[in-house]
Amino acid sequence: MLAKSSNQFVIGMVGGGQLGRMFIQNALNYNCQIHCLDPDAQAPASIYAHHFICGSLTDYQTLLDFGKDCDLITIEIENVNTDALKALEGMGKKVFPKPEHIQLIQDKRVQKQFYKDHQIPSTDFVLTENLSDLQQYAHFLPAVHKLGREGYDGRGVQLIREASDLKLGFDKPSVLEKMADIKVEVAVIVARNEAGQIMSFPPTEMVVDASANLLDFLYAPARISDKEAEEAQKLAESVVLKMQFVGLLAVEMFLTQSGELLVNEIAPRPHNSGHHSIEANDCSQFEQHLRAIMGWPLATTNTRCKAAMLNLLGERGHIGAAYYEGLEQVLAMPLVFVHLYGKQNTKPMRKMGHVTVLGQTEEEVWTKTNQIKQILKVKARP
Amino acid sequence: MLAKSSNQFVIGMVGGGQLGRMFIQNALNYNCQIHCLDPDAQAPASIYAHHFICGSLTDYQTLLDFGKDCDLITIEIENVNTDALKALEGMGKKVFPKPEHIQLIQDKRVQKQFYKDHQIPSTDFVLTENLSDLQQYAHFLPAVHKLGREGYDGRGVQLIREASDLKLGFDKPSVLEKMADIKVEVAVIVARNEAGQIMSFPPTEMVVDASANLLDFLYAPARISDKEAEEAQKLAESVVLKMQFVGLLAVEMFLTQSGELLVNEIAPRPHNSGHHSIEANDCSQFEQHLRAIMGWPLATTNTRCKAAMLNLLGERGHIGAAYYEGLEQVLAMPLVFVHLYGKQNTKPMRKMGHVTVLGQTEEEVWTKTNQIKQILKVKARP
Repeated sequence: MLAKSSNQFVIGMVGGGQLGRMFIQNALNYNCQIHCLDPDAQAPASIYAHHFICGSLTDYQTLLDFGKDCDLITIEIENVNTDALKALEGMGKKVFPKPEHIQLIQDKRVQKQFYKDHQIPSTDFVLTENLSDLQQYAHFLPAVHKLGREGYDGRGVQLIREASDLKLGFDKPSVLEKMADIKVEVAVIVARNEAGQIMSFPPTEMVVDASANLLDFLYAPARISDKEAEEAQKLAESVVLKMQFVGLLAVEMFLTQSGELLVNEIAPRPHNSGHHSIEANDCSQFEQHLRAIMGWPLATTNTRCKAAMLNLLGERGHIGAAYYEGLEQVLAMPLVFVHLYGKQNTKPMRKMGHVTVLGQTEEEVWTKTNQIKQILKVKARP
Repeated sequence: MLAKSSNQFVIGMVGGGQLGRMFIQNALNYNCQIHCLDPDAQAPASIYAHHFICGSLTDYQTLLDFGKDCDLITIEIENVNTDALKALEGMGKKVFPKPEHIQLIQDKRVQKQFYKDHQIPSTDFVLTENLSDLQQYAHFLPAVHKLGREGYDGRGVQLIREASDLKLGFDKPSVLEKMADIKVEVAVIVARNEAGQIMSFPPTEMVVDASANLLDFLYAPARISDKEAEEAQKLAESVVLKMQFVGLLAVEMFLTQSGELLVNEIAPRPHNSGHHSIEANDCSQFEQHLRAIMGWPLATTNTRCKAAMLNLLGERGHIGAAYYEGLEQVLAMPLVFVHLYGKQNTKPMRKMGHVTVLGQTEEEVWTKTNQIKQILKVKARP
């Protein structure tokens, strides 16, 4: 592909958020022509795409028209019109990840059923159709209620600890998952190309901010045993193999107190848990995504040092034009890498950027990460 | 600066070649608004600048008009109109590197005189005004004849080994430099910000293709003693201090057979000898350039592993739309990083990209580098 037409081959990126932006930032190295579609005219990737189209990702005709000019279509967000992607496939376009895989992942009910049908270890679950339906599952608690479709970044997820919480559930088709006895939450990012080559990153450890149900920061490589790490990579790769997935799949897993690995959720694209790979691994997740969809040889993924990744979230109480308080102080710290996403306005908990912290020792990384959490704040200009 | 207006502060990049392109690629991480000026409408950086203007870098009015919309002006090439930059400085714009430093470096005669006046060790030299003037220096050979102005990438440099070569010299104001007894050629990139903070990269070793008088590849860190490396960094830093330079200065040096360090040439911008820093050092030269001109704290520059950097030059005999023969084979090699510059057409010896090779050992790096030299060719599509 490359040899034939690196200057003319067009990759269509569906979605122009920070993941699309970082994908383009890396793809610059290969002269890739990238078209990008996003409903926000100011989307983070908008100015770096060779051709940016402002439009809906869920509208059939918009996505179809967008894809017609591309040779290969990929995504940076799951909430897209998969019928349009299927039509594009029918027109002979390459679409990675495949539309049926995006569809499977779009609905957490279908996702859970897939795990069950394919003997992929995961928590027990029941499907619920509405809020009154949910009330019969007091015996299934504590559990997590998840909206089947369109949950994202903490939205559409509700803890149901005891019977009195059952009223907090969703009144739409959802899935109730038994709460696992979690020791640590890890994520493994796996790439697979069309030729079947498969390569996974070492597990990263996810530290969640319980109050917002959002990833707070991650630590890599995960502080688990070598055997556990190897098993986590094997399990993640088995999901990719069972799906015959092509592209980049992030597999979030629970390691339970009893040492069991359970798949929690999957995402068919670069993932927040892989941002540190830009500086900490042989290859970044964005490079690997590109290689996987282009059918190129996959890169090695070894960890080069210890790393932590901290999301820069909009400070509570701040809405408006963003500024980054404490940024110069953070830049004075060694081996700290700031990535801002080009979003003009901040609002509470909005992902405005991330910071990766490297070090030779765990202590070095933790010390700097905790300092940065205190120093660096995304605020609105007064 | 950042805190005040990261989304509105405008950096003007004079020149839109590969150095400008890689500068923008890194600056993406800070939401920098970048305007770019280049005479080539298809310049490598053209599509990634927020605002691209096609125009001459040497025309006073063009450069002045370009700079008026910017808050800070920097360069990626020396051959620019420094009078326009001085006028912009007069209008209160920040211009780094300073116009007088660019002027000094633009003329190799002035550069040599500066070394002499400031006790910076360098080869002996005489100034020549024209070709007939040159003929009197048979006693000064072997030497290198360099055009005072507008030499670039091997053009404007002529070896004068013996009296019969004197006719090959330049018929314009030039400098004749005594040939040094070179053991190894090294380069040190130094950054300095307005506050006076200074930071240099470990020396890299330059391996020159004598036939083209072009950098063939480099190896980092240079295979010289720790003491020699320390002295090279000190010497490079002393040049920056004596100039009171602000920005990024590449200092090319000879280490002679007798162990003496002599400054050869300097460049006031990111440099071919620093490309490996993107993957091999704590921070890349493009990140350091940005930090230096923005007045931010400079980053640490430690070497993370062994590295080689190979320029991808247009194959002899090939002119036209470029393709990269052997690229997928190279991508299958671990820790190999390809950077293409987005140039549509190749011609013999044109810099089309570079490849950085990392490894834990010297042998690992050399083996891969030599393989890549055999495999990867920039050719024109038949």
